[in-house]
Amino acid sequence: MEIVSEAKSHGGRQLVCRHSSVATGTDMTFSVFLPPQSESGARLPVVWYLSGLTCTHANVTENGEYRAACAQLGLVFVAPDTSPRGEGVPTAPDGGWDLGLGAGFYLDATEEPWSGHYRMWTYVTEELPALIEAKFPVESGRQGIMGHSMGGHGALTVALRNPERFRSVSAFSPIIAPSQVPWGQKALGNYLGADRRAWRKHDAVALIEDGARIPELLVDVGDSDPFLEQELRPELLEEACQSAGIELQLNRRPGYDHSYYFISTFMADHLRWHAERLR
Amino acid sequence: MEIVSEAKSHGGRQLVCRHSSVATGTDMTFSVFLPPQSESGARLPVVWYLSGLTCTHANVTENGEYRAACAQLGLVFVAPDTSPRGEGVPTAPDGGWDLGLGAGFYLDATEEPWSGHYRMWTYVTEELPALIEAKFPVESGRQGIMGHSMGGHGALTVALRNPERFRSVSAFSPIIAPSQVPWGQKALGNYLGADRRAWRKHDAVALIEDGARIPELLVDVGDSDPFLEQELRPELLEEACQSAGIELQLNRRPGYDHSYYFISTFMADHLRWHAERLR
Repeated sequence: MEIVSEAKSHGGRQLVCRHSSVATGTDMTFSVFLPPQSESGARLPVVWYLSGLTCTHANVTENGEYRAACAQLGLVFVAPDTSPRGEGVPTAPDGGWDLGLGAGFYLDATEEPWSGHYRMWTYVTEELPALIEAKFPVESGRQGIMGHSMGGHGALTVALRNPERFRSVSAFSPIIAPSQVPWGQKALGNYLGADRRAWRKHDAVALIEDGARIPELLVDVGDSDPFLEQELRPELLEEACQSAGIELQLNRRPGYDHSYYFISTFMADHLRWHAERLR
Repeated sequence: MEIVSEAKSHGGRQLVCRHSSVATGTDMTFSVFLPPQSESGARLPVVWYLSGLTCTHANVTENGEYRAACAQLGLVFVAPDTSPRGEGVPTAPDGGWDLGLGAGFYLDATEEPWSGHYRMWTYVTEELPALIEAKFPVESGRQGIMGHSMGGHGALTVALRNPERFRSVSAFSPIIAPSQVPWGQKALGNYLGADRRAWRKHDAVALIEDGARIPELLVDVGDSDPFLEQELRPELLEEACQSAGIELQLNRRPGYDHSYYFISTFMADHLRWHAERLR
Protein backbone atom coordinates (compact mmCIF):
# COMPACT_ATOMS: atom_id res chain seq x y z
CA MET A 1 0.00 0.00 0.00
CA GLU A 2 1.26 3.43 -1.00
CA ILE A 3 0.29 6.75 0.59
CA VAL A 4 -0.54 9.04 -2.34
CA SER A 5 -1.11 12.16 -0.27
CA GLU A 6 -1.33 13.18 3.35
CA ALA A 7 -2.54 16.43 4.89
CA LYS A 8 -3.20 17.53 8.42
CA SER A 9 -6.82 18.55 8.86
CA HIS A 10 -9.01 19.27 11.88
CA GLY A 11 -6.19 18.03 14.09
CA GLY A 12 -5.99 14.62 12.40
CA ARG A 13 -4.53 13.21 9.20
CA GLN A 14 -6.34 12.89 5.88
CA LEU A 15 -4.66 10.20 3.79
CA VAL A 16 -5.26 9.03 0.24
CA CYS A 17 -3.86 5.53 -0.36
CA ARG A 18 -3.45 3.23 -3.33
CA HIS A 19 -2.91 -0.51 -3.41
CA SER A 20 -3.00 -3.38 -5.84
CA SER A 21 -6.30 -5.20 -5.35
CA VAL A 22 -6.57 -8.96 -5.76
CA ALA A 23 -10.36 -8.71 -5.81
CA THR A 24 -10.62 -6.31 -8.74
CA GLY A 25 -7.31 -7.07 -10.45
CA THR A 26 -6.59 -3.33 -10.56
CA ASP A 27 -4.99 -0.63 -8.46
CA MET A 28 -7.56 0.83 -6.09
CA THR A 29 -7.52 4.21 -4.37
CA PHE A 30 -9.25 5.03 -1.09
CA SER A 31 -9.10 7.73 1.55
CA VAL A 32 -8.85 7.36 5.31
CA PHE A 33 -9.13 10.08 7.95
CA LEU A 34 -7.34 9.42 11.22
CA PRO A 35 -8.67 11.68 13.96
CA PRO A 36 -6.31 13.24 16.50
CA GLN A 37 -7.18 10.51 19.03
CA SER A 38 -5.28 8.02 16.82
CA GLU A 39 -1.98 9.67 17.80
CA SER A 40 -2.12 7.86 21.14
CA GLY A 41 -1.93 4.50 19.35
CA ALA A 42 -5.35 3.44 20.68
CA ARG A 43 -7.59 1.46 18.34
CA LEU A 44 -10.63 3.51 17.38
CA PRO A 45 -14.09 2.89 15.97
CA VAL A 46 -14.32 3.13 12.18
CA VAL A 47 -17.10 4.36 9.91
CA TRP A 48 -17.18 3.18 6.30
CA TYR A 49 -18.59 5.54 3.71
CA LEU A 50 -19.65 4.14 0.32
CA SER A 51 -20.09 6.75 -2.42
CA GLY A 52 -22.64 7.16 -5.18
CA LEU A 53 -22.70 6.98 -8.97
CA THR A 54 -19.87 8.82 -10.79
CA CYS A 55 -17.91 9.38 -7.57
CA THR A 56 -14.44 8.33 -6.52
CA HIS A 57 -13.05 8.46 -2.97
CA ALA A 58 -12.40 12.16 -3.65
CA ASN A 59 -15.97 13.50 -3.61
CA VAL A 60 -16.76 12.85 0.03
CA THR A 61 -13.14 13.47 1.00
CA GLU A 62 -13.29 16.99 -0.42
CA ASN A 63 -16.97 17.89 -0.06
CA GLY A 64 -18.33 15.70 2.75
CA GLU A 65 -17.49 17.95 5.75
CA TYR A 66 -16.94 14.91 7.99
CA ARG A 67 -13.55 15.71 9.49
CA ALA A 68 -14.65 18.17 12.18
CA ALA A 69 -17.17 15.66 13.57
CA CYS A 70 -14.80 12.67 13.25
CA ALA A 71 -12.11 14.65 15.09
CA GLN A 72 -14.53 15.52 17.85
CA LEU A 73 -15.94 12.00 18.15
CA GLY A 74 -12.75 10.00 17.64
CA LEU A 75 -13.89 8.17 14.50
CA VAL A 76 -11.74 6.79 11.69
CA PHE A 77 -13.49 7.43 8.34
CA VAL A 78 -12.77 5.25 5.28
CA ALA A 79 -13.99 6.08 1.76
CA PRO A 80 -13.37 3.51 -1.02
CA ASP A 81 -13.76 4.09 -4.75
CA THR A 82 -17.00 3.07 -6.50
CA SER A 83 -15.59 0.76 -9.17
CA PRO A 84 -12.38 -0.70 -10.54
CA ARG A 85 -10.55 1.64 -12.92
CA GLY A 86 -7.62 1.44 -15.30
CA GLU A 87 -6.43 -0.26 -18.42
CA GLY A 88 -8.61 -3.16 -19.52
CA VAL A 89 -11.54 -2.31 -17.24
CA PRO A 90 -14.71 -2.25 -19.35
CA THR A 91 -17.29 0.51 -19.03
CA ALA A 92 -20.79 1.26 -20.26
CA PRO A 93 -21.06 0.68 -24.03
CA ASP A 94 -23.63 3.49 -24.24
CA GLY A 95 -21.31 5.96 -22.51
CA GLY A 96 -23.77 6.20 -19.61
CA TRP A 97 -22.64 7.03 -16.07
CA ASP A 98 -24.92 4.50 -14.39
CA LEU A 99 -23.00 1.38 -15.46
CA GLY A 100 -19.30 0.54 -15.55
CA LEU A 101 -16.71 3.04 -14.32
CA GLY A 102 -17.94 4.85 -11.22
CA ALA A 103 -20.96 2.55 -11.01
CA GLY A 104 -19.81 -0.75 -9.50
CA PHE A 105 -22.94 -1.17 -7.34
CA TYR A 106 -20.95 -2.99 -4.61
CA LEU A 107 -21.46 -6.47 -6.06
CA ASP A 108 -19.39 -9.22 -7.68
CA ALA A 109 -20.44 -9.33 -11.32
CA THR A 110 -21.08 -12.76 -12.80
CA GLU A 111 -21.66 -11.70 -16.41
CA GLU A 112 -19.28 -10.80 -19.21
CA PRO A 113 -17.58 -8.38 -19.77
CA TRP A 114 -17.89 -7.32 -16.10
CA SER A 115 -16.98 -10.41 -14.10
CA GLY A 116 -13.24 -10.05 -14.51
CA HIS A 117 -12.82 -6.76 -12.62
CA TYR A 118 -16.18 -5.68 -11.18
CA ARG A 119 -15.83 -7.43 -7.82
CA MET A 120 -16.60 -4.56 -5.47
CA TRP A 121 -18.50 -6.79 -3.01
CA THR A 122 -15.40 -8.83 -2.24
CA TYR A 123 -13.34 -5.66 -2.27
CA VAL A 124 -15.38 -3.68 0.28
CA THR A 125 -16.40 -6.61 2.50
CA GLU A 126 -13.15 -8.60 2.59
CA GLU A 127 -10.04 -7.20 0.98
CA LEU A 128 -10.20 -3.55 2.03
CA PRO A 129 -11.35 -4.27 5.62
CA ALA A 130 -8.38 -6.63 6.07
CA LEU A 131 -6.01 -3.98 4.72
CA ILE A 132 -7.49 -1.23 6.90
CA GLU A 133 -7.23 -3.39 10.00
CA ALA A 134 -3.62 -4.30 9.19
CA LYS A 135 -2.45 -0.76 8.44
CA PHE A 136 -4.51 1.57 10.66
CA PRO A 137 -5.49 1.74 14.34
CA VAL A 138 -9.11 0.57 13.99
CA GLU A 139 -11.08 -1.70 16.28
CA SER A 140 -12.85 -4.31 14.16
CA GLY A 141 -15.49 -4.83 16.84
CA ARG A 142 -16.64 -1.23 16.50
CA GLN A 143 -17.59 -0.62 12.88
CA GLY A 144 -20.34 1.46 11.35
CA ILE A 145 -21.26 1.86 7.69
CA MET A 146 -22.96 4.59 5.73
CA GLY A 147 -23.32 5.62 2.11
CA HIS A 148 -24.96 7.89 -0.43
CA SER A 149 -27.31 6.91 -3.26
CA MET A 150 -25.67 3.86 -4.91
CA GLY A 151 -23.42 3.82 -1.84
CA GLY A 152 -26.49 3.84 0.40
CA HIS A 153 -27.51 0.69 -1.45
CA GLY A 154 -24.02 -0.64 -0.77
CA ALA A 155 -24.11 0.25 2.92
CA LEU A 156 -27.53 -1.32 3.47
CA THR A 157 -26.82 -4.55 1.61
CA VAL A 158 -23.39 -4.97 3.18
CA ALA A 159 -24.87 -4.39 6.66
CA LEU A 160 -27.91 -6.59 6.13
CA ARG A 161 -25.68 -9.49 5.05
CA ASN A 162 -23.08 -8.85 7.77
CA PRO A 163 -25.16 -7.74 10.75
CA GLU A 164 -22.63 -9.13 13.26
CA ARG A 165 -19.94 -6.80 11.91
CA PHE A 166 -21.70 -3.42 11.97
CA ARG A 167 -23.12 -1.80 15.06
CA SER A 168 -24.55 1.16 13.15
CA VAL A 169 -25.92 1.70 9.65
CA SER A 170 -27.09 4.89 7.96
CA ALA A 171 -27.59 6.34 4.50
CA PHE A 172 -28.21 9.51 2.57
CA SER A 173 -30.65 9.24 -0.36
CA PRO A 174 -30.11 5.47 -0.76
CA ILE A 175 -31.21 3.25 -3.61
CA ILE A 176 -33.09 0.75 -1.45
CA ALA A 177 -34.86 -1.45 -3.99
CA PRO A 178 -32.65 -1.63 -7.08
CA SER A 179 -34.71 -4.49 -8.53
CA GLN A 180 -37.66 -2.10 -8.76
CA VAL A 181 -36.03 1.05 -10.21
CA PRO A 182 -34.35 1.91 -13.55
CA TRP A 183 -30.77 2.48 -12.26
CA GLY A 184 -30.82 -0.80 -10.39
CA GLN A 185 -32.49 -2.83 -13.09
CA LYS A 186 -29.90 -1.71 -15.63
CA ALA A 187 -26.98 -2.42 -13.29
CA LEU A 188 -28.17 -5.72 -11.82
CA GLY A 189 -29.27 -6.99 -15.23
CA ASN A 190 -25.88 -6.26 -16.75
CA TYR A 191 -23.72 -7.37 -13.83
CA LEU A 192 -25.74 -10.36 -12.58
CA GLY A 193 -27.77 -11.42 -15.62
CA ALA A 194 -31.45 -11.76 -16.34
CA ASP A 195 -32.34 -14.18 -13.53
CA ARG A 196 -33.85 -11.87 -10.91
CA ARG A 197 -33.38 -14.41 -8.13
CA ALA A 198 -29.67 -13.49 -8.21
CA TRP A 199 -30.57 -9.83 -7.66
CA ARG A 200 -32.25 -10.32 -4.28
CA LYS A 201 -29.08 -10.44 -2.23
CA HIS A 202 -28.13 -7.05 -3.70
CA ASP A 203 -31.45 -5.40 -2.95
CA ALA A 204 -32.02 -4.08 0.58
CA VAL A 205 -35.80 -4.39 0.48
CA ALA A 206 -35.59 -7.92 -0.96
CA LEU A 207 -33.03 -8.92 1.68
CA ILE A 208 -35.36 -7.71 4.44
CA GLU A 209 -38.28 -9.56 2.82
CA ASP A 210 -36.08 -12.67 2.73
CA GLY A 211 -35.33 -12.41 6.45
CA ALA A 212 -32.18 -10.29 6.82
CA ARG A 213 -32.30 -8.15 9.96
CA ILE A 214 -30.52 -5.24 11.57
CA PRO A 215 -31.97 -3.59 14.66
CA GLU A 216 -32.13 -0.01 13.41
CA LEU A 217 -31.34 2.29 10.56
CA LEU A 218 -30.97 6.06 10.00
CA VAL A 219 -31.85 7.46 6.56
CA ASP A 220 -32.00 11.06 5.34
CA VAL A 221 -33.51 12.05 2.02
CA GLY A 222 -34.14 15.48 0.51
CA ASP A 223 -37.70 16.10 -0.60
CA SER A 224 -36.39 18.11 -3.59
CA ASP A 225 -34.14 15.25 -4.71
CA PRO A 226 -34.84 14.83 -8.45
CA PHE A 227 -34.30 11.06 -8.13
CA LEU A 228 -36.63 10.58 -5.15
CA GLU A 229 -39.71 9.20 -6.83
CA GLN A 230 -38.22 7.15 -9.64
CA GLU A 231 -34.93 5.80 -8.25
CA LEU A 232 -34.97 6.06 -4.45
CA ARG A 233 -38.54 5.31 -3.37
CA PRO A 234 -37.93 5.41 0.39
CA GLU A 235 -41.55 4.39 1.05
CA LEU A 236 -40.60 0.85 -0.02
CA LEU A 237 -37.97 0.78 2.72
CA GLU A 238 -40.48 2.14 5.25
CA GLU A 239 -42.90 -0.67 4.43
CA ALA A 240 -40.22 -3.37 4.56
CA CYS A 241 -38.80 -2.12 7.87
CA GLN A 242 -42.24 -1.85 9.41
CA SER A 243 -43.12 -5.43 8.44
CA ALA A 244 -39.76 -6.71 9.68
CA GLY A 245 -39.63 -4.80 12.96
CA ILE A 246 -36.54 -2.82 11.95
CA GLU A 247 -36.53 0.57 13.63
CA LEU A 248 -36.13 3.04 10.76
CA GLN A 249 -35.56 6.72 11.42
CA LEU A 250 -36.39 8.28 8.04
CA ASN A 251 -35.88 12.04 7.85
CA ARG A 252 -37.42 13.76 4.84
CA ARG A 253 -35.59 17.07 4.63
CA PRO A 254 -37.59 19.90 3.04
CA GLY A 255 -35.90 21.63 0.12
CA TYR A 256 -32.76 19.49 -0.01
CA ASP A 257 -31.53 17.78 -3.16
CA HIS A 258 -29.23 14.81 -3.96
CA SER A 259 -25.89 16.65 -3.71
CA TYR A 260 -23.07 17.06 -1.23
CA TYR A 261 -24.68 20.36 -0.24
CA PHE A 262 -27.35 18.12 1.30
CA ILE A 263 -25.03 15.37 2.59
CA SER A 264 -22.64 17.81 4.25
CA THR A 265 -25.55 19.47 6.08
CA PHE A 266 -26.47 16.28 7.94
CA MET A 267 -23.08 14.51 7.98
CA ALA A 268 -22.31 15.52 11.58
CA ASP A 269 -25.74 14.28 12.73
CA HIS A 270 -25.08 10.90 11.12
CA LEU A 271 -21.61 10.63 12.60
CA ARG A 272 -22.94 11.44 16.09
CA TRP A 273 -25.58 8.75 15.60
CA HIS A 274 -22.85 6.25 14.65
CA ALA A 275 -20.58 7.34 17.51
CA GLU A 276 -23.31 6.77 20.08
CA ARG A 277 -23.67 3.19 18.88
CA LEU A 278 -19.93 2.55 18.58
CA ARG A 279 -19.03 3.65 22.12
CA MET B 1 -27.47 38.29 -13.48
CA GLU B 2 -28.30 34.65 -13.95
CA ILE B 3 -28.52 32.00 -11.21
CA VAL B 4 -26.50 29.07 -12.56
CA SER B 5 -27.29 26.71 -9.69
CA GLU B 6 -28.98 26.77 -6.34
CA ALA B 7 -28.95 24.19 -3.56
CA LYS B 8 -30.22 24.19 -0.02
CA SER B 9 -27.40 23.61 2.44
CA HIS B 10 -27.08 23.97 6.20
CA GLY B 11 -30.51 25.56 6.28
CA GLY B 12 -29.56 28.30 3.81
CA ARG B 13 -29.14 28.63 0.06
CA GLN B 14 -25.90 28.16 -1.84
CA LEU B 15 -26.10 29.99 -5.15
CA VAL B 16 -23.72 30.15 -8.09
CA CYS B 17 -24.37 33.21 -10.28
CA ARG B 18 -23.08 34.56 -13.57
CA HIS B 19 -23.21 38.08 -14.96
CA SER B 20 -21.72 40.14 -17.72
CA SER B 21 -18.97 42.27 -16.18
CA VAL B 22 -18.26 45.77 -17.45
CA ALA B 23 -14.98 45.84 -15.54
CA THR B 24 -13.48 42.71 -17.13
CA GLY B 25 -15.42 42.70 -20.38
CA THR B 26 -16.28 39.03 -19.80
CA ASP B 27 -18.90 36.92 -18.11
CA MET B 28 -17.96 36.42 -14.45
CA THR B 29 -19.11 33.64 -12.11
CA PHE B 30 -19.31 33.92 -8.34
CA SER B 31 -20.97 32.07 -5.48
CA VAL B 32 -23.02 33.47 -2.63
CA PHE B 33 -24.30 31.64 0.44
CA LEU B 34 -27.42 33.05 2.04
CA PRO B 35 -27.81 31.78 5.60
CA PRO B 36 -31.25 30.82 6.95
CA GLN B 37 -31.54 34.20 8.68
CA SER B 38 -31.89 35.81 5.23
CA GLU B 39 -35.36 34.27 4.86
CA SER B 40 -36.76 36.95 7.15
CA GLY B 41 -35.78 39.65 4.66
CA ALA B 42 -33.39 41.31 7.13
CA ARG B 43 -30.14 42.71 5.75
CA LEU B 44 -27.20 40.70 7.06
CA PRO B 45 -23.46 41.16 7.46
CA VAL B 46 -21.41 39.87 4.52
CA VAL B 47 -17.96 38.28 4.41
CA TRP B 48 -16.02 38.40 1.15
CA TYR B 49 -13.67 35.51 0.40
CA LEU B 50 -10.97 35.99 -2.24
CA SER B 51 -9.43 32.77 -3.54
CA GLY B 52 -5.88 31.79 -4.41
CA LEU B 53 -3.93 30.91 -7.55
CA THR B 54 -5.58 28.40 -9.92
CA CYS B 55 -8.93 28.62 -8.10
CA THR B 56 -12.38 29.65 -9.27
CA HIS B 57 -15.35 30.41 -7.01
CA ALA B 58 -15.85 26.64 -6.84
CA ASN B 59 -12.90 25.64 -4.66
CA VAL B 60 -13.99 27.35 -1.47
CA THR B 61 -17.64 26.75 -2.29
CA GLU B 62 -17.08 22.99 -2.39
CA ASN B 63 -14.15 22.53 0.00
CA GLY B 64 -14.20 25.50 2.36
CA GLU B 65 -16.60 24.15 5.03
CA TYR B 66 -17.95 27.64 5.73
CA ARG B 67 -21.68 27.04 5.51
CA ALA B 68 -22.26 25.53 8.95
CA ALA B 69 -20.60 28.52 10.64
CA CYS B 70 -22.25 31.11 8.36
CA ALA B 71 -25.64 29.53 9.07
CA GLN B 72 -24.99 29.66 12.80
CA LEU B 73 -23.64 33.22 12.74
CA GLY B 74 -26.00 34.72 10.17
CA LEU B 75 -23.31 35.68 7.65
CA VAL B 76 -23.67 36.04 3.89
CA PHE B 77 -20.54 34.62 2.19
CA VAL B 78 -19.47 35.78 -1.29
CA ALA B 79 -16.73 34.09 -3.33
CA PRO B 80 -15.69 35.71 -6.65
CA ASP B 81 -13.53 34.15 -9.35
CA THR B 82 -9.78 34.89 -9.45
CA SER B 83 -9.49 36.25 -13.01
CA PRO B 84 -11.49 37.00 -16.14
CA ARG B 85 -12.04 33.94 -18.34
CA GLY B 86 -13.37 33.21 -21.79
CA GLU B 87 -12.71 33.88 -25.43
CA GLY B 88 -10.09 36.53 -26.07
CA VAL B 89 -8.76 36.57 -22.50
CA PRO B 90 -4.96 36.17 -22.63
CA THR B 91 -3.11 33.83 -20.31
CA ALA B 92 0.48 33.06 -19.35
CA PRO B 93 2.64 32.58 -22.47
CA ASP B 94 4.75 30.02 -20.57
CA GLY B 95 1.69 27.99 -19.59
CA GLY B 96 2.35 28.76 -15.92
CA TRP B 97 -0.45 28.87 -13.36
CA ASP B 98 0.89 31.95 -11.56
CA LEU B 99 0.00 34.48 -14.28
CA GLY B 100 -3.09 34.96 -16.43
CA LEU B 101 -6.13 32.71 -16.01
CA GLY B 102 -6.75 31.93 -12.35
CA ALA B 103 -4.09 34.45 -11.32
CA GLY B 104 -5.57 37.92 -11.60
CA PHE B 105 -3.92 39.18 -8.38
CA TYR B 106 -6.86 41.53 -7.67
CA LEU B 107 -5.46 44.48 -9.57
CA ASP B 108 -6.22 46.50 -12.72
CA ALA B 109 -3.49 45.67 -15.21
CA THR B 110 -1.95 48.58 -17.07
CA GLU B 111 0.28 46.59 -19.44
CA GLU B 112 -0.46 44.75 -22.65
CA PRO B 113 -1.81 42.16 -23.28
CA TRP B 114 -3.46 42.20 -19.83
CA SER B 115 -5.01 45.65 -19.51
CA GLY B 116 -8.08 44.87 -21.62
CA HIS B 117 -9.61 42.24 -19.32
CA TYR B 118 -7.52 41.88 -16.17
CA ARG B 119 -9.37 44.47 -14.09
CA MET B 120 -10.07 42.46 -10.97
CA TRP B 121 -9.50 45.44 -8.63
CA THR B 122 -12.40 47.34 -10.12
CA TYR B 123 -14.40 44.14 -10.28
CA VAL B 124 -14.05 43.13 -6.61
CA THR B 125 -14.05 46.63 -5.11
CA GLU B 126 -16.76 48.31 -7.21
CA GLU B 127 -18.75 46.28 -9.69
CA LEU B 128 -19.41 43.10 -7.73
CA PRO B 129 -20.16 44.89 -4.42
CA ALA B 130 -22.76 47.02 -6.20
CA LEU B 131 -24.32 43.92 -7.75
CA ILE B 132 -24.35 42.03 -4.43
CA GLU B 133 -25.96 44.94 -2.63
CA ALA B 134 -28.60 45.29 -5.34
CA LYS B 135 -29.49 41.61 -5.54
CA PHE B 136 -29.01 40.17 -2.04
CA PRO B 137 -29.99 41.14 1.52
CA VAL B 138 -26.62 42.42 2.71
CA GLU B 139 -25.88 45.40 4.91
CA SER B 140 -23.10 47.44 3.33
CA GLY B 141 -22.11 48.90 6.69
CA ARG B 142 -21.22 45.45 8.01
CA GLN B 143 -18.64 43.92 5.68
CA GLY B 144 -15.67 41.71 6.38
CA ILE B 145 -13.08 40.39 3.96
CA MET B 146 -10.85 37.35 3.96
CA GLY B 147 -8.80 35.37 1.47
CA HIS B 148 -6.31 32.62 0.85
CA SER B 149 -2.79 32.95 -0.59
CA MET B 150 -3.15 35.28 -3.61
CA GLY B 151 -6.63 35.98 -2.22
CA GLY B 152 -5.09 36.84 1.15
CA HIS B 153 -3.05 39.41 -0.76
CA GLY B 154 -6.29 40.62 -2.31
CA ALA B 155 -8.13 40.81 1.02
CA LEU B 156 -5.32 42.75 2.72
CA THR B 157 -4.76 45.25 -0.08
CA VAL B 158 -8.49 45.81 -0.61
CA ALA B 159 -9.00 46.36 3.13
CA LEU B 160 -5.92 48.57 3.59
CA ARG B 161 -7.09 50.85 0.78
CA ASN B 162 -10.75 50.80 1.89
CA PRO B 163 -10.53 50.74 5.68
CA GLU B 164 -13.86 52.55 6.09
CA ARG B 165 -15.66 49.76 4.31
CA PHE B 166 -14.45 46.67 6.19
CA ARG B 167 -14.87 46.11 9.90
CA SER B 168 -12.91 42.85 9.87
CA VAL B 169 -10.02 41.44 7.83
CA SER B 170 -8.41 38.01 7.93
CA ALA B 171 -6.36 35.71 5.75
CA PHE B 172 -5.10 32.15 5.36
CA SER B 173 -1.53 31.81 4.11
CA PRO B 174 -1.52 35.25 2.45
CA ILE B 175 1.03 36.66 0.03
CA ILE B 176 1.75 39.81 2.02
CA ALA B 177 4.72 41.34 0.21
CA PRO B 178 4.36 40.48 -3.49
CA SER B 179 7.08 42.95 -4.45
CA GLN B 180 9.56 40.84 -2.50
CA VAL B 181 8.62 37.29 -3.61
CA PRO B 182 8.77 35.40 -6.93
CA TRP B 183 5.01 34.92 -7.49
CA GLY B 184 4.37 38.60 -6.86
CA GLN B 185 7.31 39.91 -8.84
CA LYS B 186 6.24 37.92 -11.87
CA ALA B 187 2.60 39.03 -11.61
CA LEU B 188 3.16 42.70 -10.74
CA GLY B 189 5.91 43.02 -13.35
CA ASN B 190 3.67 41.63 -16.07
CA TYR B 191 0.45 43.36 -15.08
CA LEU B 192 1.81 46.72 -13.89
CA GLY B 193 5.16 47.06 -15.68
CA ALA B 194 8.73 47.46 -14.55
CA ASP B 195 8.28 50.62 -12.46
CA ARG B 196 8.10 49.28 -8.94
CA ARG B 197 6.49 52.44 -7.59
CA ALA B 198 3.25 51.25 -9.24
CA TRP B 199 3.48 47.99 -7.31
CA ARG B 200 3.28 49.53 -3.86
CA LYS B 201 -0.49 49.98 -3.77
CA HIS B 202 -0.81 46.25 -4.51
CA ASP B 203 1.55 45.12 -1.77
CA ALA B 204 0.19 44.94 1.80
CA VAL B 205 3.54 45.49 3.50
CA ALA B 206 4.35 48.45 1.22
CA LEU B 207 0.88 49.92 1.83
CA ILE B 208 1.44 49.75 5.58
CA GLU B 209 4.90 51.29 5.18
CA ASP B 210 3.28 54.06 3.14
CA GLY B 211 0.78 54.80 5.89
CA ALA B 212 -2.29 52.62 5.24
CA ARG B 213 -3.91 51.48 8.48
CA ILE B 214 -6.49 49.01 9.73
CA PRO B 215 -6.90 48.41 13.46
CA GLU B 216 -6.40 44.65 13.52
CA LEU B 217 -5.84 41.57 11.43
CA LEU B 218 -6.17 37.78 11.87
CA VAL B 219 -3.80 35.54 9.88
CA ASP B 220 -3.34 31.76 9.98
CA VAL B 221 -0.45 29.98 8.28
CA GLY B 222 0.57 26.33 8.34
CA ASP B 223 4.16 25.71 9.35
CA SER B 224 4.35 22.84 6.82
CA ASP B 225 3.21 25.09 3.99
CA PRO B 226 5.70 24.51 1.14
CA PHE B 227 5.35 28.17 0.08
CA LEU B 228 5.92 29.63 3.54
CA GLU B 229 9.52 30.73 3.30
CA GLN B 230 9.79 31.77 -0.32
CA GLU B 231 6.35 33.21 -1.19
CA LEU B 232 4.47 34.03 2.01
CA ARG B 233 7.09 35.34 4.46
CA PRO B 234 4.67 36.26 7.28
CA GLU B 235 7.56 37.70 9.32
CA LEU B 236 7.53 40.71 6.97
CA LEU B 237 3.90 41.35 7.88
CA GLU B 238 4.71 40.97 11.58
CA GLU B 239 7.42 43.61 11.32
CA ALA B 240 5.25 46.00 9.34
CA CYS B 241 2.29 45.63 11.70
CA GLN B 242 4.47 46.08 14.74
CA SER B 243 5.99 49.29 13.36
CA ALA B 244 2.56 50.60 12.35
CA GLY B 245 0.68 49.67 15.52
CA ILE B 246 -1.64 47.26 13.71
CA GLU B 247 -2.77 44.48 16.04
CA LEU B 248 -1.86 41.29 14.19
CA GLN B 249 -2.97 37.90 15.49
CA LEU B 250 -0.68 35.54 13.57
CA ASN B 251 -1.32 31.84 14.22
CA ARG B 252 1.38 29.47 13.01
CA ARG B 253 -0.35 26.09 12.86
CA PRO B 254 1.97 23.12 13.35
CA GLY B 255 1.82 20.48 10.62
CA TYR B 256 -0.65 22.26 8.35
CA ASP B 257 -0.02 22.89 4.65
CA HIS B 258 -1.39 25.34 2.03
CA SER B 259 -4.52 23.38 1.09
CA TYR B 260 -8.23 23.46 1.83
CA TYR B 261 -7.59 20.72 4.40
CA PHE B 262 -5.89 23.51 6.35
CA ILE B 263 -8.31 26.32 5.47
CA SER B 264 -11.40 24.26 6.33
CA THR B 265 -9.92 23.43 9.75
CA PHE B 266 -9.81 27.06 10.83
CA MET B 267 -12.62 28.51 8.69
CA ALA B 268 -15.15 28.50 11.53
CA ASP B 269 -12.66 30.27 13.82
CA HIS B 270 -12.17 33.00 11.23
CA LEU B 271 -15.88 33.40 10.63
CA ARG B 272 -16.54 33.72 14.38
CA TRP B 273 -13.81 36.37 14.52
CA HIS B 274 -15.50 38.27 11.69
CA ALA B 275 -18.97 37.86 13.20
CA GLU B 276 -17.84 39.35 16.52
CA ARG B 277 -16.66 42.46 14.70
CA LEU B 278 -19.70 42.68 12.41
CA ARG B 279 -22.31 42.59 15.16
